[in-house]
Amino acid sequence: MSENGTIRAIAFDAYGTLFDVYSIGAAAEALFPGRGAALTDLWRERQLDYSRLRALCNQYADFWSVTGDALDFACDRLGLALSPTERAVLMGQYATLKAFPENLTALQRLRAAGLPLAILSNGTSEMIGSAVAAAGMTGLFDFILSVETVRTFKTAPEAYQLGPTAFGCPAAEILFVSSNGWDVCGATWFGYTTFWVNRAANPPERLGISPTAAGQSLDDVAQYVLAG
Amino acid sequence: MSENGTIRAIAFDAYGTLFDVYSIGAAAEALFPGRGAALTDLWRERQLDYSRLRALCNQYADFWSVTGDALDFACDRLGLALSPTERAVLMGQYATLKAFPENLTALQRLRAAGLPLAILSNGTSEMIGSAVAAAGMTGLFDFILSVETVRTFKTAPEAYQLGPTAFGCPAAEILFVSSNGWDVCGATWFGYTTFWVNRAANPPERLGISPTAAGQSLDDVAQYVLAG
Repeated sequence: MSENGTIRAIAFDAYGTLFDVYSIGAAAEALFPGRGAALTDLWRERQLDYSRLRALCNQYADFWSVTGDALDFACDRLGLALSPTERAVLMGQYATLKAFPENLTALQRLRAAGLPLAILSNGTSEMIGSAVAAAGMTGLFDFILSVETVRTFKTAPEAYQLGPTAFGCPAAEILFVSSNGWDVCGATWFGYTTFWVNRAANPPERLGISPTAAGQSLDDVAQYVLAG
Repeated sequence: MSENGTIRAIAFDAYGTLFDVYSIGAAAEALFPGRGAALTDLWRERQLDYSRLRALCNQYADFWSVTGDALDFACDRLGLALSPTERAVLMGQYATLKAFPENLTALQRLRAAGLPLAILSNGTSEMIGSAVAAAGMTGLFDFILSVETVRTFKTAPEAYQLGPTAFGCPAAEILFVSSNGWDVCGATWFGYTTFWVNRAANPPERLGISPTAAGQSLDDVAQYVLAG
């Protein structure tokens, strides 16, 4: 248990929280000079849109497929011709995403304090597993929780329920950590104690609910939990 | 019944389909010169995001509130100071949206053919009613179907079910018409016969399903139904 007595375990979002999804932008820019940012932004937007629409309509397809569909749409919309090889290069980024620099140390500190850690992600277990290995995080997590087992996506309650089920404790005793404002709001609605890693200093989402705490990096998460 | 024997009624999406939501852009540009398009795009994006996140999490708030929340977020994010008066001007656009030019004639042709017509929208009944009146469409619709009665948003099945319930016939015998690619996909998943009014010549959404038919205006809808 942490010194912050209410927190007994921690669940982390993957993309944008542990792994920098915008590092994909460099690969996109290399392929399409001057259009990398537009492609990356529209790709990410549709990736989230498609996951939510499929969740709402109970039309699950795994996140690898959804991510590829979103990439194909974004290229169509922007008038970019994407060869099969170029498509593989961009999709392949998901297996080798860079971790944010402070993450490894912060995760090791939390683990050393005896807190079980998990990743709770829209990604497939294969996608998450390869990113964990590439980022040097192998062995740090007690659970890799992919929504593929419940065939829906965050922010559906069935997705967030993976945390309490795996850790065997109520959501309120688990700290859910995400850099995505919508994700911390969904998790807070579900019942988690939540921490918004607001790396980009974004304004809060206007959803009528606030995360329990906020900071700018995983160091701030460790500080909150260990000194709480 | 139409000459296209399978279609017994028609349900129209409101914003972007009957009413030009991007006419809001002119008001935004007048208030914030050079930033109108950015504000309008981000406002619309968050309006949809918030509706979907609330639907997924069973945290309904009506579309007027969601639209105001999205506007406030967009201004925060873009660093635009929005006075209460300016906010009222932008929100007020929703009561006086312009109709697309061909709509009135096309709707009158469909009505003259004996087809019952409805609007099926995420908007509140008050929002839709004021837009209908401002657009000169009073009396053209048999049903104004607002998701407020089921407290969720499209693409949730409960929202699409409003059509078959009102018309008293199966979704497959109702033509659902929307300019939004995601909306026609959701309606097709639900079971409607669907028509995508692809005004902007966008590429199709990559959701693994296609609308039954597509065209560029409500004239094409009338053509499809009456000459089918």
